[in-house]
Amino acid sequence: MIIVGFDPGLATLGYGVIQTDKRGRAEMLDYGIVSTPKTENLAVRLCLIEKGVKQIIEKYKPDQIAIEELFFAKNVTTGINVAHARGVVLLTAVKECGNIFEYTPLQIKQALTGYGRAEKIQIQHMVKTLLRLNSIPRPDDAADALAVALCHAQTNKFGKLFSI
Amino acid sequence: MIIVGFDPGLATLGYGVIQTDKRGRAEMLDYGIVSTPKTENLAVRLCLIEKGVKQIIEKYKPDQIAIEELFFAKNVTTGINVAHARGVVLLTAVKECGNIFEYTPLQIKQALTGYGRAEKIQIQHMVKTLLRLNSIPRPDDAADALAVALCHAQTNKFGKLFSI
Repeated sequence: MIIVGFDPGLATLGYGVIQTDKRGRAEMLDYGIVSTPKTENLAVRLCLIEKGVKQIIEKYKPDQIAIEELFFAKNVTTGINVAHARGVVLLTAVKECGNIFEYTPLQIKQALTGYGRAEKIQIQHMVKTLLRLNSIPRPDDAADALAVALCHAQTNKFGKLFSI
Repeated sequence: MIIVGFDPGLATLGYGVIQTDKRGRAEMLDYGIVSTPKTENLAVRLCLIEKGVKQIIEKYKPDQIAIEELFFAKNVTTGINVAHARGVVLLTAVKECGNIFEYTPLQIKQALTGYGRAEKIQIQHMVKTLLRLNSIPRPDDAADALAVALCHAQTNKFGKLFSI
């Protein structure tokens, strides 16, 4: 199964693509960011976000898409910008793929480390370990997106175990 | 010139359609709301918003679209929901029409009443008067959307005067 994870943002949208086998073992296929220039107006930046999300989905044809829920930033303006972009990511993902799932930062931390207050660096180390990478993926937004995808894979795995 | 105004919201998106003549006199063509059920998930609601915005633009083929900027609500959760919906409205509007303009609540109040702290009811009375309606349009979201469209028409008019 192919899972794409998105860490929404307006300036930088992180994405991570993984493939899981029947035993739930995950392999990294790709990761990266879609960035939009601050000099452009909001509507144009949202079009760039849509274009980027579409290209990723068309390239990898994911079975499922996992999107991080908005953790409300201390900075309200940033939060609003992220929410504008996140609306576009959700819309595009549901139109192009259909199977979308949302996870809070708490759920992601718990799925990867078993601890809801884990630090960013611990999550990143788990991403590196679970995907057997040589180093922590950069930038942070891409590592976060892989974490969302892995969170969904883990949730799926345990969901299946529990449903037997 | 045909102008569509949008007052973005997730549960209720207001729209107002006006036509202006060469002297800047505005006539109301239509107004109303696009509503999305709270029982549906966010992604489905965003698809409904997109569909509604597309239908309005296809029906009236506006020359320009005016969208209210987000006035940050006291309720952060509501603000985030509105921003998700607003992202979708902006994306759809710029893709379908191209000519989009954003106005803050302050700009709208100033354009319609000359006073940035005007009350909601004063704005609604100005909408009724400027469009020569028999009563104040309901619900509030539709009246607000007509106010955004009128604000854009006024700004255009004065913009032209000043540029002579």
